[in-house]
This record gives sequence, structure tokens and C-alpha cells, in this order.
Amino acid sequence: MRIRLQLLVTLAISACFLSLAGCGTRQTPPAPDNTLGMVADLTVLPQDLTVYAARAGMERRLLDAEAQARQNARYDKLFFAPWDAAKPSVKAEDAFAIFGLKAESRPRGWAENLLPWSARNWAKLAANANRHAYPSRLDKAITVAPTPLREAPTHQPRFGNPLSAGEGFPFDLFMYATLPTGMPLLVTHASADGAWLFVENALVAGWVPADNVAVTDEAFRSRYRNGNRAAILRDNVPLRDASGGFRGTAGLGALLPLERTMPSGFVLLAPCRNAQGRATLVPVQVSREDAAPKPLPVTPEALARIGNRLMGQPYGWGGLYGNRDCSMLLRDLFTPFGIWLPRNSAAQARTWEYVDFANKDTAAKEQYILDEGEPFATLLWLKGHIALYVGAYDGKAVMFHSLWGIRTEQNGQEGRHVIGRAVVTTTRPGVELPFVQDREGLLNRMRGMSRLR
Amino acid sequence: MRIRLQLLVTLAISACFLSLAGCGTRQTPPAPDNTLGMVADLTVLPQDLTVYAARAGMERRLLDAEAQARQNARYDKLFFAPWDAAKPSVKAEDAFAIFGLKAESRPRGWAENLLPWSARNWAKLAANANRHAYPSRLDKAITVAPTPLREAPTHQPRFGNPLSAGEGFPFDLFMYATLPTGMPLLVTHASADGAWLFVENALVAGWVPADNVAVTDEAFRSRYRNGNRAAILRDNVPLRDASGGFRGTAGLGALLPLERTMPSGFVLLAPCRNAQGRATLVPVQVSREDAAPKPLPVTPEALARIGNRLMGQPYGWGGLYGNRDCSMLLRDLFTPFGIWLPRNSAAQARTWEYVDFANKDTAAKEQYILDEGEPFATLLWLKGHIALYVGAYDGKAVMFHSLWGIRTEQNGQEGRHVIGRAVVTTTRPGVELPFVQDREGLLNRMRGMSRLR
Repeated sequence: MRIRLQLLVTLAISACFLSLAGCGTRQTPPAPDNTLGMVADLTVLPQDLTVYAARAGMERRLLDAEAQARQNARYDKLFFAPWDAAKPSVKAEDAFAIFGLKAESRPRGWAENLLPWSARNWAKLAANANRHAYPSRLDKAITVAPTPLREAPTHQPRFGNPLSAGEGFPFDLFMYATLPTGMPLLVTHASADGAWLFVENALVAGWVPADNVAVTDEAFRSRYRNGNRAAILRDNVPLRDASGGFRGTAGLGALLPLERTMPSGFVLLAPCRNAQGRATLVPVQVSREDAAPKPLPVTPEALARIGNRLMGQPYGWGGLYGNRDCSMLLRDLFTPFGIWLPRNSAAQARTWEYVDFANKDTAAKEQYILDEGEPFATLLWLKGHIALYVGAYDGKAVMFHSLWGIRTEQNGQEGRHVIGRAVVTTTRPGVELPFVQDREGLLNRMRGMSRLR
Repeated sequence: MRIRLQLLVTLAISACFLSLAGCGTRQTPPAPDNTLGMVADLTVLPQDLTVYAARAGMERRLLDAEAQARQNARYDKLFFAPWDAAKPSVKAEDAFAIFGLKAESRPRGWAENLLPWSARNWAKLAANANRHAYPSRLDKAITVAPTPLREAPTHQPRFGNPLSAGEGFPFDLFMYATLPTGMPLLVTHASADGAWLFVENALVAGWVPADNVAVTDEAFRSRYRNGNRAAILRDNVPLRDASGGFRGTAGLGALLPLERTMPSGFVLLAPCRNAQGRATLVPVQVSREDAAPKPLPVTPEALARIGNRLMGQPYGWGGLYGNRDCSMLLRDLFTPFGIWLPRNSAAQARTWEYVDFANKDTAAKEQYILDEGEPFATLLWLKGHIALYVGAYDGKAVMFHSLWGIRTEQNGQEGRHVIGRAVVTTTRPGVELPFVQDREGLLNRMRGMSRLR
């Protein structure tokens, strides 16, 4: 048997890379630059949420039992809403907006080869979306894996102009969310080739790969809904059956039926897909480190412990690669507590008790946060961004958020100093950097704050 | 039921995009630039392989029946080699080279957030590769979908320095290949979390997602190997069972057992995965446009017809997004003809009858190609690149290839004029562009040519 050895492949592919068509030699990549992705805040402020939790009162309940029960009931109602729906809710003009008439006058965006999407490939994509047949199905279904949900039925990306700051990779504009394993869905449509399904749920509507979805029946749904659920507390938790077989993975933000509690952990039910595309339930074992009965009591300790598992993890626009953007970070963080946050930052801000900052200058905004913000239970909202307030440090308001970058400007050219991950910062991250014009950091654009009640 | 409307999501996400944390307003993207990805060759030369096939003799056999039968038998032997193997062939130091001692002194590369891979995430990735247990399995298996094969057990990318020409996105260095649906594999290892499998085949070894692989038994393999096979002739062909159910997709380069020929098309057998991860075979119907019994007679007409389906399709380093780089384009193009080409360009050049260009200057190289090259049956090899010679046009040698870009240099700064797709060019594409230094195009680096016999 002629096996191509891994090493040979590595060498050959390296050679291929060293001399991509048209180029002679490649510049040697510089050694990693330690200033990449660094701002003073990241050195000064502990990147460990337990430090802030200790100041906020580790075990203090941030939500009383009655209020939390209300939140938890609301979470479950929204979670299972797709299985209670009698018909599609999304209008064709919304579902197919990207292919609609208005879209014709807009650029189609850039493809993975850094060139504008070709008219031919765009037309194929639009045809495969099969608009004329919408809605074509009505199935109550479930995700069987972490599942990308997209604006169009393709894994191929759509970028803004790759030459503009913050627009090329990794900002795949087709990406709306990564749905967790075990999320109820209403399937309302399929692509012409059957490989993609249009689905609705209370979070977001769009296209998901058909392989990631299984169709449920009444018996499945009844077993799935009734009883308790456990929250998965870590990304990439393997779901293994009684004989150790791999049955899928689940990440932080996923909920699965809790079958049994044992001294060593939990028996949960994993939704799996059979060869016919129907959903089956398989008992799987998960450790106490990786799961807990939902809802967990809302305390700074628990939020810090779970939040620390996300600390430093790469920013992911729209959930690209299963990573999190600013709003997805908060949604997944609050799910184990039975607190439902919607998909986008503006809606998240209005879910709790919102205070508008309209008439405040930047100093007044920060003072208000310090005076009235409840650490670990207050969201700080900017147009297009959202963060969790975690308390004061050296007299400054400090927040936990997934941040792409700091805007810079040099010779009239806009750029980004990339942070690109979940971090703890003040409200003025990176103001010490060269080429950052705005000395008030995020405060200028901060619109309001929102308190959990 | 509170459904977040698609349109609202679009608007909200656009807003989010317009004001990414730290930035105020976004520059309006310029209208698509029609010079993007264009070189004079693409205007002058017909981007339609049938033009060149007509000159080469449409129906002329480029390989006699006996030689083709030998090639086809060799293809099948290599294709099924993983099922004939008694033990793993890849040594641990090769399989885990990226995590090995030598790798410690190399930079880990850049992650999807355009920052260097963090030490913490790299250590997690290495731990999950589970080297100490290698090899841990020995299963004869099969892909049930187009399947990314990667250097490490993750979908997350590893880039060279994103600031260097031709090194950031889309050059995910973890990407080795996209394997077609229905490819026999030898599974020799699993990641610690079970989500990734290390597999061998005669093309390339590496990690694939466990969900894309089904384990076969003797009865499955016997049914799968015996009898004839059909070649899939188009990308994204849906595999539908007798009742129209979606059972997967297959692309150009895939082979599936041919069960029955009907006036309207073919009944093929699709490998599917049951909930236990075992392989089952499902009869599926595919049209005559989308499949044909393997091997097809090797004629310019057939190569041009199939090649035209790849024309203009985005370049995909290592098969990223299921696209093709230079060598994958040729491998998939020749598969329906039962002609096995290996994974990388250097090995491809040596598969046929190789003539070295060592002592020839660029003019002599081109003249030799024009004199001795057989259109549609000659590979032109450069270190790190490969193309199919399709004949002379206006006295120049013309080739079909998937090309990333043309090297440019401006103020000592290396760059690329991106072509980014499968095209027909001369041996000097883009020499008319500003900042292209090398007036001999690809000829300077051309090492030899290789003729199909």
C-alpha cells in the first residue's frame, strides 16, 4: 500500500506554499510580535473574572429565586417555541432578502478568493435557495451538533471589501450564529439540492446544513421537553454513550435533557440522527465539571467560573468556527442560569431594565456605571457592541467582552488594532496606542446600560 | 412565538458591522473593481476548453484502450488500498510532526483572529491529538460526505503571517485536502474527545471529522468494491433515495458503485452513516449529466466538457471550502477517466512520462512544449505549481490551471495580483501588469513536463 507519509505531504505542501504560482521565494515570517493584540488594560487588569467576583461577593445571589424562576420559565418557552409553532413566521421577502430586488443594486460582496462573488456563482446560489417553492416544509426538528446558521445555503463566505479595515476575513457576512447541539427548530424550507434547510427558532432564522438536523416525532419531543435539563458548561464536551462511543459534541450554551444524576456526573440525553434523518435519543455521560442542572443560582462566583472558560478565546463574527462575537458571548454565558438573551446586542440591552445615557457626557456615563451598575448583572451597550460590567478596578469601570479591535487612523487610512478575543478591559481600551484618535474609548459611543432584575 | 425576522437580523447585524467596537463609521465599500482578478490573457484567450479541444481533435483517443485499462486498474488498487492494509503506515513522528519537538522552535502560526495561536489553545489542540495513544484504532471506513482532511484535529485555521503576501486567509495551512464522498479509509486513531479521526489512504493522511466517516464491515466492503463504479461529473450533486429523501452530496472527483443504468440516468449506491456510526448503502438516483460509468474514454472533448465545469471556480488552498488548488484541480479532472494523480504537484509530474527542462532557457522551454506537448495529455510542472497544457493559441503555449496570483513588487514590498480561480492562460499571465518584475511569467520556474502514456 502506497501511503503518502504525513511528513512528505508536509514538506511537499510547504514547498508548494513557498513558491505559489508567480512568486519566487517567500519572505520569512517574522517572529511572533508580542505587542500583537495587546493593550495596556490587558496587562494592568487581571484577566481572571474571579478577582472581580471576589469583590462583588462570591456567593451573593444576583437574582432572587422567584425572579430567576420567571426567567427560567421564559427561557424554556422561547427555547421550545419552534415546536409549538403551527406555521412559518418568516416572510419570503425577509428570508430571501439577500437575493431580492433591493440586493441587486448592492454589491454581492467578496468571495473566499478575495474577489467579488462571480455573477455565475451568485446566480447558482440564488437558484439553489429555491425561493419560488418557499415555504416547502414544516418539520419540528433538532440540531445534533454545533450548527452554523447562515444567510445563504452555502459554507462559502461573503466578505465586505477585503481592503477595508474590519471587512475582510474573518467577517463572513453570511454567518448569523452557531446554534448549540440540541436546539429545537422549525424547518420550513429546503434548498433545491436538499443539502441546506431553512429553519426558525426564537433566536434567529436562516440556513443550516441538513446533516446537522434531525426530524423529531411526538414521542421524541415529549421525552425531550418533559423533565429537567442540564446546561453544558464547557466547549467541545464529548457526548459518549454507555460503551464509550462518540455520539457528538456540545459546547457552552447547549442544554440537554437530564436523565439521571450520579456521584461522578450526569446521564444526559443526546439527540442523534439516524440514516433516515430522524432524531433518536442516546444516553450519554458527562462529568460534573462539564455540566450542571439548569438553572444555576446567579452568583458572581458561578458567572466568573464559567466566564473564565471563555476568557481569551478567539472572537468569532456570527459564530464563525464556533467562536463568539460580543452578543453570543453573553448569550452563552447566561444560558446555564436560565436567562435568555437574544442574538443581537441592541435587543439584549432591552431585555433587562434599560437606562439610557442620552444626556450624559462620557465622565457622567462612567460615574453612573460605577454608582448604579451591579457587577456581573449589568450590560453596557454601545451601538453594535455589548459588554458585561464586572465592577470597579482602580476607580475605573471594568467589563468582560469579546472585542474585535480598536479603531486606528493613520494618514487618513482607517485600521484596526486587533484584540480579537474575550478580554477584561476598562471603557477606554487601547487609548495609549499610537493612531487611536478617540481618547474616550468606548464611552463616546455608549448608549446605555441594562440591569438584570 | 417570537421569531427574530431575517430582515431585522440583517439590519441589526449590519448595524453591528457598521460600528464594530472601537470604530465609529465604516468606509463605504467601493463599487466592485472590474480589473480585480483580470489579466490580459483572460480577455485574449477563450475561457472555454472546447475551443482548444476542437483544435486538438475532439474525439481523438489520447490513451489507447490497453493503456487506459492499466491506468484504471492502478486507480482502483490505490483507491481501495486502505481496505487492504493490515496495519497503520504513518509513523507517530510524522502524524504528529506539527506538535513535535522540531515544531517547538517554529512559530505556531496565526489563528482565525489574525493573532498568533495562543499557547493555551495550542496546548489544548496538541493534548486532544492524543499522541501517546497512537495508533489507537484499526477500522476500515468510508467518507459519507465531502470531507476536509487536516493536519490537526480542528476546523480552526492556522495561517502564516497575515501581513505577508500570500500567507493569511485563505491559506489555512492545516488544510491538506477535501476528500470526496465514498472514499475508502483506514482509521488508525481518534482524538481524545472522539470528534476527529486520523485516517490513511493512498492520497494523503490526516485528521477528518468523525461525523463524516462510517465504519464498514466485510459485507459492505464486498458489495462496495465488486462491480462497476460511476464517476460524479459535477460538484454538489444531491444523492436522493427512491422516495426523494436527501442522502448526501457528492462532487466531481467522487466515485460511487454503479448499481443500474436506466434511460434517464443511473442508480448508484451512496454510503450513509447510521446513528451508531456504521456504514449502510442506499440506492440513489443521479442524472446522465451528473455521472458516467468509469472510466470515460480519454478525449479532448470529454476533458474539456468536464474541465469547463471547473472553469472560473474559486481557488482553494488544500481544498478549503471544497474548492481546488492547482493539483486538486487536475486530480479531480482525471478521476472520471480512471487516471490516478497523487495529491501534490511534484508527485503528479512524475506520475506520467517526465521530461526535465534543466538545460533549457525560457524560449526553448516554450518551443519544446509546443513541439512535443500533447494537448490535454501533458502536465506542465513548476516547483509548487502544475497546469494542464491544452494547446497553442496565437503561437503561444496555453494551459488550464487553478492559479492563486501573480507576484508583484512595489517599493520593495511583495504582493499578489489575485487571479484566485481556474483559468486558461499563456505561460506568462499578467506580465503586462504594473509591478510585475518577472517578464518570463511562469517559464523561469518551469522545471519540466509530463506526458500521459
